[in-house]
Amino acid sequence: MIDLSEIERRLLPDEELSRKLSRVSQDLISKIRIELERDGIQAEPLLVGSVSKGTFLDPDIDIFISFDRKYEKSFIVSTSLRIGHRVLSNGTERYAEHPYVTGSVSGIKVDIVPCYRIKKGETIITAVDRSPLHTRYILEALPEEKKSQVRLLKAFMKHLGIYGSEVSTKGFSGYVCELLIIRNGDFIETIRSFSQTKGRYIISDGATRKFKDPVVIVDPVDGKRNAAAAVSLENLSLMKIASREFLLNPSDEFFFGTRTRKKVLMERGTHFRIFRLPLIDAVPDTLYPQVDKFRRVLEKLLDDGGFIPLGSEIHMGESIDILVELRFLKSPRFIIHRGPPADSERTHDFIEKWIGNERALGPYLLGDRLFVEVPTQPESVEEYILNRIGKRNIGKNLNPVKSKLSILKPSPSEEYEVLTKYFSRVIPIHPRKPP
Amino acid sequence: MIDLSEIERRLLPDEELSRKLSRVSQDLISKIRIELERDGIQAEPLLVGSVSKGTFLDPDIDIFISFDRKYEKSFIVSTSLRIGHRVLSNGTERYAEHPYVTGSVSGIKVDIVPCYRIKKGETIITAVDRSPLHTRYILEALPEEKKSQVRLLKAFMKHLGIYGSEVSTKGFSGYVCELLIIRNGDFIETIRSFSQTKGRYIISDGATRKFKDPVVIVDPVDGKRNAAAAVSLENLSLMKIASREFLLNPSDEFFFGTRTRKKVLMERGTHFRIFRLPLIDAVPDTLYPQVDKFRRVLEKLLDDGGFIPLGSEIHMGESIDILVELRFLKSPRFIIHRGPPADSERTHDFIEKWIGNERALGPYLLGDRLFVEVPTQPESVEEYILNRIGKRNIGKNLNPVKSKLSILKPSPSEEYEVLTKYFSRVIPIHPRKPP
Repeated sequence: MIDLSEIERRLLPDEELSRKLSRVSQDLISKIRIELERDGIQAEPLLVGSVSKGTFLDPDIDIFISFDRKYEKSFIVSTSLRIGHRVLSNGTERYAEHPYVTGSVSGIKVDIVPCYRIKKGETIITAVDRSPLHTRYILEALPEEKKSQVRLLKAFMKHLGIYGSEVSTKGFSGYVCELLIIRNGDFIETIRSFSQTKGRYIISDGATRKFKDPVVIVDPVDGKRNAAAAVSLENLSLMKIASREFLLNPSDEFFFGTRTRKKVLMERGTHFRIFRLPLIDAVPDTLYPQVDKFRRVLEKLLDDGGFIPLGSEIHMGESIDILVELRFLKSPRFIIHRGPPADSERTHDFIEKWIGNERALGPYLLGDRLFVEVPTQPESVEEYILNRIGKRNIGKNLNPVKSKLSILKPSPSEEYEVLTKYFSRVIPIHPRKPP
Repeated sequence: MIDLSEIERRLLPDEELSRKLSRVSQDLISKIRIELERDGIQAEPLLVGSVSKGTFLDPDIDIFISFDRKYEKSFIVSTSLRIGHRVLSNGTERYAEHPYVTGSVSGIKVDIVPCYRIKKGETIITAVDRSPLHTRYILEALPEEKKSQVRLLKAFMKHLGIYGSEVSTKGFSGYVCELLIIRNGDFIETIRSFSQTKGRYIISDGATRKFKDPVVIVDPVDGKRNAAAAVSLENLSLMKIASREFLLNPSDEFFFGTRTRKKVLMERGTHFRIFRLPLIDAVPDTLYPQVDKFRRVLEKLLDDGGFIPLGSEIHMGESIDILVELRFLKSPRFIIHRGPPADSERTHDFIEKWIGNERALGPYLLGDRLFVEVPTQPESVEEYILNRIGKRNIGKNLNPVKSKLSILKPSPSEEYEVLTKYFSRVIPIHPRKPP
């Protein structure tokens, strides 16, 4: 086994940073408290998140202003924005479930977010109301000496690209890492538990309902909530595989290794098209699911149209680019209509409609269902998509720009980030032979 | 409603034929009985099948020689063959479960088949031992006046192409038709029951086990047997659809209509290949399942190879022809290897093997499984199949002739029965508007 304590040391913040974080956050909290008292508002500033819990890798300061439940939501939002701007001279507004102020002090990123004060078991009003309860729970349940174990786990997951519960990552949140260490005892036992799990990974103590997600870690402050609901099946799978690799051949590369991106060049005999929309001003957590839905709508349409999509990739840079690899650039010369099943009263009308048609093949039975094949005018992939995308719902933010969709044939002389990404799909693991 | 009694009259055998059948079968039975008595064999000739039950459409005479259980199987077979040849001067031997003699007398086809005498509930020794029990049951349970109802049902099914339990038909046997009339009362009620059935068609009185077939009609002489096990889902579906069509618009076309084959000509932009094997001397019920398996092996291989088969058809004439319609004539330039699932210990070896390979894309995760894409030399459909078919099992009778497989590209100037069949896949129904 490698010396994990050496890695723990490398992950510890230096003393100067720790002092600075403590000073900046105490200073901000005092200022906010003064503002609240001056305005006679029943609310309290709280340091939450990984800095408050002493388990951080990145020193971001999250301060929540916890309001009494008697206040209207519009009031707590406007109050927090006003106070946020007062205490953060360089603050700008961002929008998650509701607007908040983000800025920086002495080079440290600071968020100031409103929430409602709730007690364990009470119904939350906004999505972030649980955070102060999470902080309190972790401070009570996670002993000081285990904090560096949380850092090891976070760094391991971060290096795999599965740390963070944003929809573009679909990974493990910091809170989930803390719960895993509390439950399993330390980093190595957590790794061992993933390496040995078959199927779903489940810690369901205190659950008050059933969960179907690949990873289930019931929130100790709310038995109705799966704290790990964001984790995708792929990311659970990667965590299992990487855990086994680490146990076979432990090395600090799993925390600090640098990876050169493998870019495979292959004469594939297929076709590529990039479906491009203008970039939209929206929070990534709102936009990404829509882009992902747009990708699935495109793949389904292309599959129905007989173009045979083989794979796809998303890149959001200066524009929203969705790459699709296709086996065909023209749709087939005939389409197969799926008719009613044999048990349906509609078989008569379907037969009546098609049986006399000399250009239609069928109706015939496949299993218990009628089908008919009808010649059709083939379309190019561009015509096919542009003729159909108008009617599809691809989400609130993307629908208005559907008319701006352009379809690019990637030119061999140009670089496309989405194409590079597509041809570097490799799990981030460097295994070596077992010793 | 049309006059069904008129159709019943058209289906009745004329008196001359009836007298001839009776005379020929009585004469044969006497002769066989004399032979058996002379040799001192404890066995009895029995008229079985539809002629014995008076429900026939085609006047075939089936005579079973029912032997005492004390005899060896080889003895009952050789004895029946010897007697069969003595009473049928033009007899030839055929092979089903065991050999038997078939021939004709006064233009009427005659089969002479050995079986063991069993009582209801006793275990059968050969597959045909139940036939005399079936005959006895039907003679007891089917009143004389219902016999023409059986003929209506048989003719209706025959016209649909779903009468007969041979593997090439996968339809309803004569015995099943008789049981349907006994259960439902008459032809119209049988049609009505099919028209109203959702899902499987089940008559399970007296069942001593569970059945999963699309049609379940438990054999009254053996509760462990589904008399309708041969019926395919397609044929059940066609029976439901045709029954509803008949009730909407009853006409004698459902019994006697002639159909002109609809041959659809379509510019499909696809490719056709005929996979041809020499015809083999084997009973159709043995050969057909192997040809059907060969068809499925070909489709699976072509699908795995990326040729994208769209459909297929079988024709057995002077050769065994399997037509396959394909979207590609060349295999892709790369193949996707399916690796182990994340839970498997084999992930390490798979990653070790592929991660350093600069020509391979991946390994990457899709769901809980690893995949890798590797460039490969494309093959023509002919090369691809001929390189692989040698290792596949396509059945006892076809395996020895695999090396004679030829792959034809249909020439536009020639006629191919299998291609005509493929382009005339239409359910045999002529619906009209409801009155």
